[in-house]
Amino acid sequence: MAFKTIGAKAAAALDKELMSTGAFSIDQLMELAGLSVSQVVYRVHPISKGPRVLVAVGPGNNGGDGLVAARHLRHCGYAPTIYYPKRPKNDLYQRLAKQLEDLDVPFVDDFPAALKSTDHVVDAIFGFSFSGEVREPFPAVIQAMAETKVPVTSVDAPSSWNIDQGPPKSGVGSNFHPDVLVSLTAPKPLVQFFKGRHFIGGRFVAPAIAKKYDFDLPGYEGIDQIVEVSPGGQRL
Amino acid sequence: MAFKTIGAKAAAALDKELMSTGAFSIDQLMELAGLSVSQVVYRVHPISKGPRVLVAVGPGNNGGDGLVAARHLRHCGYAPTIYYPKRPKNDLYQRLAKQLEDLDVPFVDDFPAALKSTDHVVDAIFGFSFSGEVREPFPAVIQAMAETKVPVTSVDAPSSWNIDQGPPKSGVGSNFHPDVLVSLTAPKPLVQFFKGRHFIGGRFVAPAIAKKYDFDLPGYEGIDQIVEVSPGGQRL
Repeated sequence: MAFKTIGAKAAAALDKELMSTGAFSIDQLMELAGLSVSQVVYRVHPISKGPRVLVAVGPGNNGGDGLVAARHLRHCGYAPTIYYPKRPKNDLYQRLAKQLEDLDVPFVDDFPAALKSTDHVVDAIFGFSFSGEVREPFPAVIQAMAETKVPVTSVDAPSSWNIDQGPPKSGVGSNFHPDVLVSLTAPKPLVQFFKGRHFIGGRFVAPAIAKKYDFDLPGYEGIDQIVEVSPGGQRL
Repeated sequence: MAFKTIGAKAAAALDKELMSTGAFSIDQLMELAGLSVSQVVYRVHPISKGPRVLVAVGPGNNGGDGLVAARHLRHCGYAPTIYYPKRPKNDLYQRLAKQLEDLDVPFVDDFPAALKSTDHVVDAIFGFSFSGEVREPFPAVIQAMAETKVPVTSVDAPSSWNIDQGPPKSGVGSNFHPDVLVSLTAPKPLVQFFKGRHFIGGRFVAPAIAKKYDFDLPGYEGIDQIVEVSPGGQRL
């Protein structure tokens, strides 16, 4: 059975509902989303494969999830490095960055250089709200992630992919196929084009909300915040 | 080696520092504290021992940790019930309660009655900021927890115990010895009087902060949010 996907519009409405009638704060949701991303990295890339994780952080909530994931990875013994070229003045993002600075996590400006000395990459540039063109300075970053042999884990969507239609037919991102994807709350339609290891994370959705948005909770086990599914979102 | 304890004053200062210079929001800290409490319950009381967990929730942050723990337990398949007789109007607590209501978690008014039909109890009434007398309606609740044969897990402190000096010499709580204790961030001096299973949780403290407050991070393993130590706080 394939888990139902939720399109870009539904994902935006779900997010809004969780933070209004659902009564969640963005801090809570981001903490749990980022925690689930860190658990995926721990699963696919144990520290024994190399502790260095380069996290590419975009300007919005997907980037926030990446910052939280980096913090949890640091607490778990990894050595994360943050590439965060567009820092919004938003209080939450500034706090998440400060929490990393207090853990002596380095922030770097040169993504291609950082890519040469890492063991894993987390792509937290764009998420379900992405559409249109990839703005500077991210085209070169996505191109570098497309070309590197270092394994890449994308958060919610491979950055530059259209949420509903998948990879762009040409240009930036058309050749970007990350090794791992963490779908947050539910897979997006783009998963039909994805070929790597696929997890669902974000264990905070009430059954009634999932029903309203017509998707299935993935059957998390024990205290896991993640569950692995097939690349296209079939139950394993 | 015994983990160093932090007294009531230091715990209050640490909490304040985490939320000021540490840049954490209370939502973040409570989410992670509550998550660690849920992981302790999962460890000491697997669902196979009975899914019903009665959570006694106090009016402050300790209660908030209990509400978060109940939500995670619900997502993990437990059937929590909430006793929450003093609900502050504070937005955060109201939201945490709403999140439970959306998961169809029942709130009950009669603690002794609820105690007769549960498999485990979480004591989230008072935490490190407690001092002085136990106010109504909690004396009877603590007395019931002291007398029940149902196992009790206390959050940060057995409620009614003095943080620095342990159980009261007489009156309410003098005979309250919970089975399990989750010390959040670091054990409090009261642990020298504690005899049950003891865990440290709250995996969010930066090493520099722990050093400043003169306590040790407990050496969490893997992605665990908790680590078991001896009743008095020795490394196991």
